[in-house]
Amino acid sequence: MSDDEYEPPRREEFEHDPVSHAEVRAGMTVGELADEYGRAGIGAAAVHEAVEIYAEMLDPDVTCFLSLAGAMVPTGMRRIVSDLIRAGYVDALVTTGANLTHDSIEAIGGKHHHGREHGEGSLREHDETLRDEEVDRIYNVYLPQEHFALFESHLRSEVFPPLAEDGVVSIERLTRELGRANADANDREGVAEDAGVAAAAYECDVPVYCPAIQDSVLGLQAWMYSQTSAFSLDALADMTPLTDLAYEADRAGCLLVGGGVPKNFTLQTMLVTPGAYDYAVQITMDPEATGGLSGATLDEARSWGKLEKDARNATVVGDATVLLPLVVAAARERVEG
Amino acid sequence: MSDDEYEPPRREEFEHDPVSHAEVRAGMTVGELADEYGRAGIGAAAVHEAVEIYAEMLDPDVTCFLSLAGAMVPTGMRRIVSDLIRAGYVDALVTTGANLTHDSIEAIGGKHHHGREHGEGSLREHDETLRDEEVDRIYNVYLPQEHFALFESHLRSEVFPPLAEDGVVSIERLTRELGRANADANDREGVAEDAGVAAAAYECDVPVYCPAIQDSVLGLQAWMYSQTSAFSLDALADMTPLTDLAYEADRAGCLLVGGGVPKNFTLQTMLVTPGAYDYAVQITMDPEATGGLSGATLDEARSWGKLEKDARNATVVGDATVLLPLVVAAARERVEG
Amino acid sequence: MSDDEYEPPRREEFEHDPVSHAEVRAGMTVGELADEYGRAGIGAAAVHEAVEIYAEMLDPDVTCFLSLAGAMVPTGMRRIVSDLIRAGYVDALVTTGANLTHDSIEAIGGKHHHGREHGEGSLREHDETLRDEEVDRIYNVYLPQEHFALFESHLRSEVFPPLAEDGVVSIERLTRELGRANADANDREGVAEDAGVAAAAYECDVPVYCPAIQDSVLGLQAWMYSQTSAFSLDALADMTPLTDLAYEADRAGCLLVGGGVPKNFTLQTMLVTPGAYDYAVQITMDPEATGGLSGATLDEARSWGKLEKDARNATVVGDATVLLPLVVAAARERVEG
Amino acid sequence: MSDDEYEPPRREEFEHDPVSHAEVRAGMTVGELADEYGRAGIGAAAVHEAVEIYAEMLDPDVTCFLSLAGAMVPTGMRRIVSDLIRAGYVDALVTTGANLTHDSIEAIGGKHHHGREHGEGSLREHDETLRDEEVDRIYNVYLPQEHFALFESHLRSEVFPPLAEDGVVSIERLTRELGRANADANDREGVAEDAGVAAAAYECDVPVYCPAIQDSVLGLQAWMYSQTSAFSLDALADMTPLTDLAYEADRAGCLLVGGGVPKNFTLQTMLVTPGAYDYAVQITMDPEATGGLSGATLDEARSWGKLEKDARNATVVGDATVLLPLVVAAARERVEG
Repeated sequence: MSDDEYEPPRREEFEHDPVSHAEVRAGMTVGELADEYGRAGIGAAAVHEAVEIYAEMLDPDVTCFLSLAGAMVPTGMRRIVSDLIRAGYVDALVTTGANLTHDSIEAIGGKHHHGREHGEGSLREHDETLRDEEVDRIYNVYLPQEHFALFESHLRSEVFPPLAEDGVVSIERLTRELGRANADANDREGVAEDAGVAAAAYECDVPVYCPAIQDSVLGLQAWMYSQTSAFSLDALADMTPLTDLAYEADRAGCLLVGGGVPKNFTLQTMLVTPGAYDYAVQITMDPEATGGLSGATLDEARSWGKLEKDARNATVVGDATVLLPLVVAAARERVEG
Repeated sequence: MSDDEYEPPRREEFEHDPVSHAEVRAGMTVGELADEYGRAGIGAAAVHEAVEIYAEMLDPDVTCFLSLAGAMVPTGMRRIVSDLIRAGYVDALVTTGANLTHDSIEAIGGKHHHGREHGEGSLREHDETLRDEEVDRIYNVYLPQEHFALFESHLRSEVFPPLAEDGVVSIERLTRELGRANADANDREGVAEDAGVAAAAYECDVPVYCPAIQDSVLGLQAWMYSQTSAFSLDALADMTPLTDLAYEADRAGCLLVGGGVPKNFTLQTMLVTPGAYDYAVQITMDPEATGGLSGATLDEARSWGKLEKDARNATVVGDATVLLPLVVAAARERVEG
Repeated sequence: MSDDEYEPPRREEFEHDPVSHAEVRAGMTVGELADEYGRAGIGAAAVHEAVEIYAEMLDPDVTCFLSLAGAMVPTGMRRIVSDLIRAGYVDALVTTGANLTHDSIEAIGGKHHHGREHGEGSLREHDETLRDEEVDRIYNVYLPQEHFALFESHLRSEVFPPLAEDGVVSIERLTRELGRANADANDREGVAEDAGVAAAAYECDVPVYCPAIQDSVLGLQAWMYSQTSAFSLDALADMTPLTDLAYEADRAGCLLVGGGVPKNFTLQTMLVTPGAYDYAVQITMDPEATGGLSGATLDEARSWGKLEKDARNATVVGDATVLLPLVVAAARERVEG
Repeated sequence: MSDDEYEPPRREEFEHDPVSHAEVRAGMTVGELADEYGRAGIGAAAVHEAVEIYAEMLDPDVTCFLSLAGAMVPTGMRRIVSDLIRAGYVDALVTTGANLTHDSIEAIGGKHHHGREHGEGSLREHDETLRDEEVDRIYNVYLPQEHFALFESHLRSEVFPPLAEDGVVSIERLTRELGRANADANDREGVAEDAGVAAAAYECDVPVYCPAIQDSVLGLQAWMYSQTSAFSLDALADMTPLTDLAYEADRAGCLLVGGGVPKNFTLQTMLVTPGAYDYAVQITMDPEATGGLSGATLDEARSWGKLEKDARNATVVGDATVLLPLVVAAARERVEG
């Protein structure tokens, strides 16, 4: 490392872009913040790239798949998603039964609650107390169990009966009926300006796919209803319209929020179409090192042919409740601003 | 902190167990290693606790649910699971279509391969090359795509036809048929001593539940077959026997390997039975901070009533390919050794 | 779960705040985004809380400690930190030798570079190539090694000689001298508007503490210089002024960016003062489950008396290159906007 | 994906090793378990590789550096490390002040304790209670604060006085004196068979380097003692013998347990020697995506020249309290078994 030992590098020139430094100002917009991220490295660079790609995906010529894992709705992301749907930025939504369950609970007037002071971690005795109080916990969000009984009534009076006559129906038939019933209930009860994700999708004619629907309270209720009626759900039927949508897309893009079944179901549809995604942005905190699909890189998806070889893609590592609002606000600023 | 400032503590006495120190010796058994973990803190204490609990769960009077996420089979965990089934330690298996797909590929003579030197991470160009070579990557495991074509033939000749006559069947009907066909193929081809997870379950009459089956190559193939036949899969039918099993259990325990749909589907069945799990061990690397179910603590499950208030439970944070063999070997040593 | 089984909850009323839903708009400010986070749960709630607390800490009456781990400077966070210093928002900076090394390299005209397309992961062959090209990699940031030779010259001509006469000096003496020399070099060479963190601290008379200085290229250079001179560094001397600052603070707050030695050194100073931090915000992605201090919760710090029992504190889990700009921009908007 | 679309792959042949499947048996040894890991993928393959490499490093011709981060001693890893030292498997130890502090507390008769039932997470009120009870928490390990007062007496009567006469001494002088005093105290009090890490190192003449010593209770005590005596610590002095050891090594290897300063200090010594590490094994749970050194891959270290281009290296992702015992037991079985 002394001068004597030093030998000039053999590189002709160093062609990479210099890192400059992010600068922030009071009152700057979210889009300006995203520009500043583009100067920096590590994850900031990835957020900037994600915003660029997602803004391109918002072009009307791109068919946009939105995959939404886990518990995004009860934790405050409901409005962002319903706004994207109403603005025409979603061509298909792939999500979980949990999201649809909690979305519906709010449409009929239920509320989730902030638990312990934005706390950290958990403690057994604390959850034992919640059990006694009949409050269910989702990390730092609480839901009194009584809302599940109201949800059951909603399903049994408004959602399942019109389906039961048709015997085994597609899951998308159920999510559509749920959207209609949620919109009605929200209006009837004057609950809120926004009737939620399922309602917005129903009103905008956007299909909602929910491949693992049985893995949720909505699924449990559907099963209980099926015990005393001809009603049931076809696990495979939705793959036809989903694949058709992928097949017919000029250019296809996906925004993957979290991992799980929604992520893979969205990606795998490209295994049975000649094309693949031209754009892909994922927001995830799942670690790659498990080897699981949830934390897998988009490059891994490229080896399978789920992404085009020359697709633009970005992985943003972090909490979706922080990063989804940020990426959406910045991308919409670029497109609409 | 000086002597002057120091005031004696107000605690009468300090009643917690002292941490002693793990000691290791050449030639020690895995069970002895687990005992040593019990002396230590952090995650070692959790592994020790997990072994204790799982050993209790192996009692014939405990009904054992095994949930197996993601990609455990292609990454080398197939034999451990099939051995557990054959030894009578599994009363129901809840898993993914991916595990069943890769399990079947090996039963018909296919092989997964170690990729790049047990490496770290990924690189776009590398996956582009794999794409050109028609090799699919699962983290550091490779699978030539040709095996999917052979798998398709196997399904279309041996598995789907007997089902097609019955129209819409339960997913468990399909996994049973797959187990039978895999056992036959493995024998016919003299593939290996072990015909795999589905085959072992078939032979031992252990039901295999796969709620998100459509989210896999197996699911894609089932869908393609359904396009030209009356065959389809009922998304809800399996919930009846699964709930019955939980209902009839004197004591119930679950070993949750990874998160995802298998974890929640295994847990949620207790929402519709009067009881709950008496024992629960989870092995996961999914972070709690996402708020998702995959990384959620078992205490959170307790707030929902999925675990008994006084259930014994342990969460082991880490890689399931390392920890599942360790926990199983140590627990079997206690029970059988 | 059926109506029959349902029993009304025993809670008198449910007193937690309802979760509402974040809403985003094209052109909204970062501060408005932070307000929206406050409606949501999971990590968004924590970001909102962090902004609230940090804005309070920016009050001139609060003594502000900023701890800055690892590699924040070479990855684009240099300007945000130097701006905070120049705006009077930092009373003491605790950081690493790595940050000071890379800060100085830029002050003398060197540049870090964006590596592979904002990529993911790594691959052995790739790093072997970089080795041949004499390029050092920090995740996705590259630095040609030639800059270390120029840094050595800078140290040996501008920084070490004035110190050498005094024999064993405090580390803070060195960081102050480095700041002066960086400011001079930056001006002389017309490098950039911003001479960096050490220069800003020098000019604003803010002390820079670097407890593990020997663990860096700056430390290696200091050691080599010490081999041929009377110069050396006193490991303990800086603890006096740091403790004095904590002792004299009316109210004390800390912003902890990443973990490592800077985090603990900042926190532990409260073990030898009667008070403790009144405010604490940490931004970290280090997992709690290692049991290490880097990922430890601030509640753990409370058990040690590093935080006041009634301190306001928030932990934001995520990438500091994304979250530091966001939290700073939003807090400055509240205070200055 | 149908037969028609299928085209034979262009690969001549597929030269990777097949993944077979791990098999476990009641009573198997830890070394046998490690062999089984070698059949599998994901992290199991990495553990197997780590065992292979570490067993090679135990060859007497390899100079072995052991870096030990954070809180390994209070959490039960003390005996494994002292046994490695006594067996001649460590040529230099690089560690933290925290490890030395807690090691000494046990040598003088103190005890750490298992906290809450091998629990998960934390809760603010709980830590407030611990604060009132004067108990410090390290994740799930508790330490009554009274032990720090006894530690202070030990330092002030047995450790610091012999050093004070020499003014500014190297940190390694202090750790050696501490080892001597711990060995004496342990014997005198009949505390335990094992006097701990510092004592073992003292008795076996293995240097203990502790670059960030001021960042610990040991460091705080050293600073307080320096206030009233000529005593202080030289931050740079230890780099000479450490570099000499690296320089003189025929072959060099490092076992990196956790990240932090010990990891980088161990690696960076190769920046000022002509050679580099021939073997490197790291056990860490720190995420790579922070961009920090703690979670950085060993490939990144290769770009800097800290590892030889053809070095054998393995990264094991997981909890060191689980993996250190496992890797050491398996490697010792290979070498001694």
